[in-house]
Amino acid sequence: MITFAENHRPLILVTNDDGIDAKGIRVLAEIAREMGNVLVVASEAPHSAMSHAITVREPLYLTKTCQDDHLIMYKSNGTPADCVKLALHNLLERRPDMVLSGINHGTNSSSSVHYSGTLGAAREGAINGLPSVGFSVLDFSADADFSAAAPFCRHIIGQVIEQGLPAGTFLNVNIPKGNELKGIKVCRQAQGKWMEEFVEHQDPRGRNYFWLTGYFQNLEPQATDTDEYALGHGFVSLVPCKVDISDKDLMESMKSQGYEMNVKGVQTL
Amino acid sequence: MITFAENHRPLILVTNDDGIDAKGIRVLAEIAREMGNVLVVASEAPHSAMSHAITVREPLYLTKTCQDDHLIMYKSNGTPADCVKLALHNLLERRPDMVLSGINHGTNSSSSVHYSGTLGAAREGAINGLPSVGFSVLDFSADADFSAAAPFCRHIIGQVIEQGLPAGTFLNVNIPKGNELKGIKVCRQAQGKWMEEFVEHQDPRGRNYFWLTGYFQNLEPQATDTDEYALGHGFVSLVPCKVDISDKDLMESMKSQGYEMNVKGVQTL
Repeated sequence: MITFAENHRPLILVTNDDGIDAKGIRVLAEIAREMGNVLVVASEAPHSAMSHAITVREPLYLTKTCQDDHLIMYKSNGTPADCVKLALHNLLERRPDMVLSGINHGTNSSSSVHYSGTLGAAREGAINGLPSVGFSVLDFSADADFSAAAPFCRHIIGQVIEQGLPAGTFLNVNIPKGNELKGIKVCRQAQGKWMEEFVEHQDPRGRNYFWLTGYFQNLEPQATDTDEYALGHGFVSLVPCKVDISDKDLMESMKSQGYEMNVKGVQTL
Repeated sequence: MITFAENHRPLILVTNDDGIDAKGIRVLAEIAREMGNVLVVASEAPHSAMSHAITVREPLYLTKTCQDDHLIMYKSNGTPADCVKLALHNLLERRPDMVLSGINHGTNSSSSVHYSGTLGAAREGAINGLPSVGFSVLDFSADADFSAAAPFCRHIIGQVIEQGLPAGTFLNVNIPKGNELKGIKVCRQAQGKWMEEFVEHQDPRGRNYFWLTGYFQNLEPQATDTDEYALGHGFVSLVPCKVDISDKDLMESMKSQGYEMNVKGVQTL
């Protein structure tokens, strides 16, 4: 079990889905280290688009890669959500004060929140009752420039340390590429989808294969309260997200639409 | 591209996360086949707990495994969500009328909806604007008995064919084990989590490994409107779920809590 010197400092767990060698997680760990003791647990390899996947059919390994002032790092062969579970159950002596995931190289706005390993890790933190935030910069390149993003990450982390987050919620923060950021907007998730295409080719053995590609389409380009709108206007988008995905309105209408039934002779629940 | 004879019948896409050889998907395909033309596209291997993961770094393959009356089957090396994308973009000549996923061997109630490959596939259907349902039976065994579950699946599929589902929603259906099912209840997702443990051992090369295990804990056992309550009382639970996970209430409070900011001189968005 890990113990930090100066353990009165906030204890911050950091992970990501681009892998422990990505530039984005080093930037995020350094920001977190200004404010607290930081445990990084991240995948040894990239796990983009792993969503909230967890590993149930294979064993997981943990290897310490760094111990420095206020910073300890481990790599694992698990998914981002696995890394959160491993940290909470096998490494940390006490519950962390927050879980940070990222900074992802590439967008996780709109419905991409569901494919994202970055946000899967943040949701895992929230399921465990911890204030959790996923950060992404709209730049897929390995050497993306995070210098403009850093002050905004710092602001949001500071707010969460100060105020906490309600149980069952987590934050999805996306940050435009470039240096002309205009501010932070609290938004809702835009309705949107990836317009998929599969590149089709033959492999060296003559079998046809399909490789996923595509482009994102905002299905409500007129709406001004969405993450896509904020990002398109140079603002950092901040979407508070729920673990509970029940559709309460639809529940009511389905009850009157004949979905419920009782087997003959059984009393209604 | 696939074309079916009698193409006036509903076109139903079926997938799962236990793999194409699982008993549950064969049962679901047979139920769907009573009502329409059925394309099964499913993983060649089990993909439990794959959530909404998609494959972006590897090519995908498709192999036809069966062609029968009103039934065509393909296996793929992709995730459940990949299978939906492959079917929509590379196999089907027209959009299907619905997407069915399952019947999963094991529970996907409460927060397990987020880990589930079964429900990842259903959400993928919903993101693509298709009425989508994930079915799970609370029995992990490979030879689980689906005979009691079948009439309830049939009822729900019939309702969805008749009435459709609102855009951006999908259904999470869980069915108790055993033959004494009492009916169907429309519910909300219970607050709950897996109380994790990792079994720790040494591998043959002397490295310590961790293997995920645990048990589910319902964090609101008193609530009577949850899926856990319905399942615990012998009812099939039906939770309508949203693709949009924005927390609208929290959005409002965060705006007044100092999360938003504008860079000096920038006009508020």
